[in-house]
Amino acid sequence: MPIHGQDPPDSTPTTAPDPMPSLHAVIMAGGSGTRFWPASRNARPKQFLPLANGKPLLQAAIDRVEGIAGAARTWIVTNPVQAAALPTVVPQFARGQVIVEPEARDTAPCVALAVARIAAIDPQAVMVVLPADQVIEPTAEFHRMVARAAAIAGDGRTLVTFGVKPTFPATGYGYVEAGEPIDSQQPAARRVERFREKPALEVAQQFLAAGNFLWNSGIFVWSVAAIRAAMQVGSPELAQACDAMTAAIRAGDDRALEAAFRSAPKKSVDYAVMEHAPHVAVVDATVRWDDVGSFPALTAVAAPDAQGNAVLANGGASAVLLRSSDNVVYAEGKRTIALLGVKDLVVVAVDDAVLVCPKDRAQDVKAILEQLKAEGRTELL
Amino acid sequence: MPIHGQDPPDSTPTTAPDPMPSLHAVIMAGGSGTRFWPASRNARPKQFLPLANGKPLLQAAIDRVEGIAGAARTWIVTNPVQAAALPTVVPQFARGQVIVEPEARDTAPCVALAVARIAAIDPQAVMVVLPADQVIEPTAEFHRMVARAAAIAGDGRTLVTFGVKPTFPATGYGYVEAGEPIDSQQPAARRVERFREKPALEVAQQFLAAGNFLWNSGIFVWSVAAIRAAMQVGSPELAQACDAMTAAIRAGDDRALEAAFRSAPKKSVDYAVMEHAPHVAVVDATVRWDDVGSFPALTAVAAPDAQGNAVLANGGASAVLLRSSDNVVYAEGKRTIALLGVKDLVVVAVDDAVLVCPKDRAQDVKAILEQLKAEGRTELL
Repeated sequence: MPIHGQDPPDSTPTTAPDPMPSLHAVIMAGGSGTRFWPASRNARPKQFLPLANGKPLLQAAIDRVEGIAGAARTWIVTNPVQAAALPTVVPQFARGQVIVEPEARDTAPCVALAVARIAAIDPQAVMVVLPADQVIEPTAEFHRMVARAAAIAGDGRTLVTFGVKPTFPATGYGYVEAGEPIDSQQPAARRVERFREKPALEVAQQFLAAGNFLWNSGIFVWSVAAIRAAMQVGSPELAQACDAMTAAIRAGDDRALEAAFRSAPKKSVDYAVMEHAPHVAVVDATVRWDDVGSFPALTAVAAPDAQGNAVLANGGASAVLLRSSDNVVYAEGKRTIALLGVKDLVVVAVDDAVLVCPKDRAQDVKAILEQLKAEGRTELL
Repeated sequence: MPIHGQDPPDSTPTTAPDPMPSLHAVIMAGGSGTRFWPASRNARPKQFLPLANGKPLLQAAIDRVEGIAGAARTWIVTNPVQAAALPTVVPQFARGQVIVEPEARDTAPCVALAVARIAAIDPQAVMVVLPADQVIEPTAEFHRMVARAAAIAGDGRTLVTFGVKPTFPATGYGYVEAGEPIDSQQPAARRVERFREKPALEVAQQFLAAGNFLWNSGIFVWSVAAIRAAMQVGSPELAQACDAMTAAIRAGDDRALEAAFRSAPKKSVDYAVMEHAPHVAVVDATVRWDDVGSFPALTAVAAPDAQGNAVLANGGASAVLLRSSDNVVYAEGKRTIALLGVKDLVVVAVDDAVLVCPKDRAQDVKAILEQLKAEGRTELL
């Protein structure tokens, strides 16, 4: 299958099996990323932030799939607010490749919409679905890993997810319990016994000790046929909504498309589909993977200095750190952040706001947003 | 003597003693205030900051003396850089009342220049000399306190300083050792036994225990004749420079004035004059006095909330504080400062810079300035 190199001609719908399904990449870019406030806002989610060597994470995601899907089969699914901002954030990305959700509605409707869009033009396609806001390196290994998954998904019935080997008992990720290898030739691809939601610490420690639990990366590979069949098993309403969306897209009927989208259950794709699917495999994510979940995780994109300070400064910003250690500084615009004698802090400075909190409280930044909302300070949300 | 109400006509030089000397107020506004970086800069010293209910401290100093000296006998002494900024900082203040030092040169030359300027037009005058960057309240009591001192200084030979009753063993202030009352009718005015420079903590504790040591407020009242005579005793070069400046001003010779100013020893007025003067009295400062020496002292101008957080926000700035206590926040411009779960910090945010440091390190902010200087970041100094 042509997962490298130039775009092949679009597959045309056919009833005969296509021996060379084309690979489509779907970048899910609907997240709001409130944990990066005040850098992130409603209209400026985490994936728009310049966290990838000064480029937006979304641009890094586009670059990541360019070599395997090609521009004509790379899609961004997002909501209307973020779609409107795309021309300034990723100006090179073709408008026609943007799939706009009528509203933000969790990942199952989002996936169904993307599946419908691709099914309408290429029902034999295999899709790689990935979040817009992760750090994944190196790209060449990502391509190899997707190729392995696509070979498995090529059977037309297996859903493939990628599992990250846990390095600590994380309570912020879902887990995948891996079983036997699906094929003795491919020990790095195993059957999924179960999906496990974010666990309590004690459970996470057991997962880590057991050795066969992997973090659920949120990256999937499947064929259109397989995900459609899995929807039918896990959520017939979702399958029905997906079919209706496919028909509406083929008919060019936007109102029908919107109605079908709104009829899809507001659930995550994990909950609505993956957990019920009969054929799921997990492939080892052989890349450096980080979901950059909050400011302290910026050490994944900005290497700390000898004192453990990670500084991410864009747009002319700079930092002066004296007698300070293990801090995370995020700054934008022509300003200098000076830290003197502080430790383990998050300091964020953008044009209209500054945040200071201990690293171990960074997850609680939503309390600030709630306060601002209560005060009617919507311009800061 | 007319220390209240409308301006009396200028006194004219005369050899006969004038029974009603007029009171001139000299506001010394040459300080740089590096301890308020990044709010303060070379061209924006502490006295320009809106620390007096949103007004510059310098404006508060002008307002403070208005009722005792009147506009025509109120003077600001400052350096050329700050003089250039005065029209924007205190737009109502008459340009003709600004005495510009040819260069910043410690307080003895500054005082000598002010004495020369006033001696040239009003040799019988009594002067109150006060720093531009202090908080003194209430104004009515300040007027009474100056009236008491002016009555003593009216003898034409006594220099009067104001002493603040110490509330803790401060090591950052000079002290005045008070002796016997100068007059049994005025127990709050005592002879000065000695001036003591900033003491070590142990010595400061002894001063506090002894009870007759007062903080040197930096506010003085004296007649032109008395300060001129005291210069002659403490520093003949200073007296000579002062006389030369007086003559140059009378002659309208700016080059001679500048040369005379530069010939004055670069010393403090305490060291060059006060410590050697034969007749010095200290009057109790019966006001709330604070020199607002650094960010933690902002509690003197911004009352802390129930959690001990002092917030000074000007120009559209605001703050959101959650689970935070005993912090000092200074903000300017349309920005919001959010603190979450922090304690005992100083957080300062202006357009082009942010500072975060513990309150007990706020005195060390000059280390940041040295670092910026070393990096050539002069735009931030």
